Amino acid sequence: MSGAPLPRSLERLIEALSRLPGVGPRTAERLAFHILRTPLADAQALAGAISTMREQTRPCEICGHVADEVRCRICTDDSRDASLLCVVEEPLDLIAIERTGAFRGRYHVLNGALSPMSGVGPGELRMRELFERVDAAAAAGSPIREVIIATNPSPEGDVTLLYLQERLGTKVASITSMARGLPFGADLQYADAVTILRSLEERRGVES
Amino acid sequence: MSGAPLPRSLERLIEALSRLPGVGPRTAERLAFHILRTPLADAQALAGAISTMREQTRPCEICGHVADEVRCRICTDDSRDASLLCVVEEPLDLIAIERTGAFRGRYHVLNGALSPMSGVGPGELRMRELFERVDAAAAAGSPIREVIIATNPSPEGDVTLLYLQERLGTKVASITSMARGLPFGADLQYADAVTILRSLEERRGVES
Repeated sequence: MSGAPLPRSLERLIEALSRLPGVGPRTAERLAFHILRTPLADAQALAGAISTMREQTRPCEICGHVADEVRCRICTDDSRDASLLCVVEEPLDLIAIERTGAFRGRYHVLNGALSPMSGVGPGELRMRELFERVDAAAAAGSPIREVIIATNPSPEGDVTLLYLQERLGTKVASITSMARGLPFGADLQYADAVTILRSLEERRGVES
Repeated sequence: MSGAPLPRSLERLIEALSRLPGVGPRTAERLAFHILRTPLADAQALAGAISTMREQTRPCEICGHVADEVRCRICTDDSRDASLLCVVEEPLDLIAIERTGAFRGRYHVLNGALSPMSGVGPGELRMRELFERVDAAAAAGSPIREVIIATNPSPEGDVTLLYLQERLGTKVASITSMARGLPFGADLQYADAVTILRSLEERRGVES
């Protein structure tokens, strides 16, 4: 920030805020001035919430989702179908699926997708944990009957999908992936060419 | 957030973040998960920067800008013209003017604008400090020769402008306000009607 010399502590906060995703220097400035003006208790609550969250959360030892105990609330929920496993890249993907309320199985969070270009191989993701989980379920006589691979519709997500399909194909009765096509409510004329192409290729018969 | 039960500490952080301006629930979630994933030192740095900033800053006793000492760096800069005073609503307005590098006078931050509708009268703003400052400068034999009233081009900013003009008119040789008109680089066809109207009313002769 040229021109206006600001207190060092305020500049440091602006710097720290501008490292957040989607927060540019101007937004960081606006947020910092909001925190400057807000009641002291609110500012302290925000600072405290950051520290406390980092102290009190950990990855679930089974699925990798964020948890406050050794295991997350989904993995310890006996009402959920343990034979149906949905594999996602990130906890936020899990949350998006949970929001629909339509899925009653369990999850496995990979913590990313395969990306040879960025040096992300199977060892960088929670792949080994997934294979061990599938094997352990089979060995215990309660095999996983379906794995839904819900990686992102992106080149990295598709590479990950193919890799998992290959590695799990002999172990799991059914391997599925999320449907691809025009998103609900979208305008066909604004859809990208790849989505239109795939929606044509994977067109379905209309039920009468 | 319906559906996915999250650790309480993570939900509290999402709540605290969503109180920031321009941060909706989805953005707060995204920011919280970023803070969950970021190296611990970065998360601690952000939490620490919030607390430290609140502990180490205060309003400048002269102009009201944010400072780390009793007086801010602009008010203690002897190279700046103390007879030229720019009145702004917020510290961020001051910073925007400083960024141009074109103003070498001093500032007075009002901490808002008059808004009878919202119950903001002169007593809620740093008005008394401004009048006292102007009087003190005159009494000390170094009067303020020009006050630039740089309030926002809004109904509240204009009410504040008129009020200050009336109150300072007899005390200061020159009272000015920022020019209004089409912003540089703007397309006339996209300008709002009020801006076009005022730009027409305040049209200027073209120098040849």
